[in-house]
Amino acid sequence: MNIILVTNDDGVHSPGIISLYKIMKEIGDVYVVAPDRERSAVSHALTMHRPLKVEHLDDHIFSLNGTPTDCVAVGINKIIPDKPAFVVSGINKGANLGDDITYSGTVSAAIESTIMGIPAFAISLVLSKKPGLPFNFDTASKVAVEIGKYILENSLPYDTFLNVNVPDIPINNLKGFKLTRQGKRVYDGSIHETFDPHGEKHYWIGGGMPYWEHGEDTDIQAILDNYVSVTPIHLDLTNYDALKFLQNRFKIKI
Amino acid sequence: MNIILVTNDDGVHSPGIISLYKIMKEIGDVYVVAPDRERSAVSHALTMHRPLKVEHLDDHIFSLNGTPTDCVAVGINKIIPDKPAFVVSGINKGANLGDDITYSGTVSAAIESTIMGIPAFAISLVLSKKPGLPFNFDTASKVAVEIGKYILENSLPYDTFLNVNVPDIPINNLKGFKLTRQGKRVYDGSIHETFDPHGEKHYWIGGGMPYWEHGEDTDIQAILDNYVSVTPIHLDLTNYDALKFLQNRFKIKI
Repeated sequence: MNIILVTNDDGVHSPGIISLYKIMKEIGDVYVVAPDRERSAVSHALTMHRPLKVEHLDDHIFSLNGTPTDCVAVGINKIIPDKPAFVVSGINKGANLGDDITYSGTVSAAIESTIMGIPAFAISLVLSKKPGLPFNFDTASKVAVEIGKYILENSLPYDTFLNVNVPDIPINNLKGFKLTRQGKRVYDGSIHETFDPHGEKHYWIGGGMPYWEHGEDTDIQAILDNYVSVTPIHLDLTNYDALKFLQNRFKIKI
Repeated sequence: MNIILVTNDDGVHSPGIISLYKIMKEIGDVYVVAPDRERSAVSHALTMHRPLKVEHLDDHIFSLNGTPTDCVAVGINKIIPDKPAFVVSGINKGANLGDDITYSGTVSAAIESTIMGIPAFAISLVLSKKPGLPFNFDTASKVAVEIGKYILENSLPYDTFLNVNVPDIPINNLKGFKLTRQGKRVYDGSIHETFDPHGEKHYWIGGGMPYWEHGEDTDIQAILDNYVSVTPIHLDLTNYDALKFLQNRFKIKI
């Protein structure tokens, strides 16, 4: 049976990973190796300055006192019995859209897996703004298992993983899947000033409202239109157009 | 006079950032906003769970108890008097080549700057393997100031920064500059097992020797040939070829 490795950045006890664990059992032998606590916005951090401790919580469920990237590296090399058919990271409680994916712990697990040559996808629930309503993790779970089946049958293009975002709506309201490109967030630079008990100024990053550039084929637009957004992401960050452009202009002598 | 923001991930007291600070004064009004201590392999982490404290160390030199990404965000929004002409991150004591750039704190500062629409470059000294020899930070400094001049005159393509790697050799041995694409490291999965004082097993990531795919136009090859490697990197990680390929094949119904 295909081994599937499940991880996330919200921690091993988050509702998103539990939904994912349960539904992935329909299509494989599922292992969870996830951070012991929330590790959001850690990006692709790899812990090299200290040793990492694995806790065996239950049958196929392990936690690690590290980042999602650590979980993939240690999980695949040291915990699961064989190479996984794919790695899935999520379900993140919150969007991973546009340039924000460079900060994302959820996405970083898929990056690490891709570096190791193993197909992967990151899946995130884009929270709606109605407080008090339950999150539609069941919608995202059903999306996840369909994408998992696709990968088992077709694999993925070289050096490429899927960044999947799911609108926070009941499955019946979902319009379908859209293949998208990564959208662009316009920077808002929200930093609050605050004071410690001794009256010293500190800065606290965050809290602003993201603003997005428009574009019909972007990830953010698909979500606004109630589609699942599926963006193929690769690890080669070279801007080849710029490379060609600069080739004739970048004449520096030293 | 043009404002230049200098940061890094080795910390405000590292020799690399001091070389950079001094030489950049030749072409601008230089501010340093850098982490208070080493923050390597933190990738594009943004600190949002706690407030950040700025220390004013000297005239134009500030430290922050956060990541390189934090330094760019807080530096530009709260510390320096006006928008910088460009941001430079480094000189990192160690390479930032191939897929490894996704882990890099040095590169992440350039990413954050690019998100904010400000030209940037990351500069790293690729250490040679001869222990005991002094590092050629002066070579990298001279490279940095030439690239700085180029950016002041020409700016950079949209949504793109430069990832610069410099071989650790005297400047007279340098063959020149090469525009390159991001190379690919073959994963080696080095994880050591170690035991704590109570006999419990822990894992320690790292220590392997990187192995690189060959390719004449790659960053790693330029370094091996004693050239400065300059790779234009963009923030759009979409694999457009894969997007086109999947468009006709990715037929999932839900």
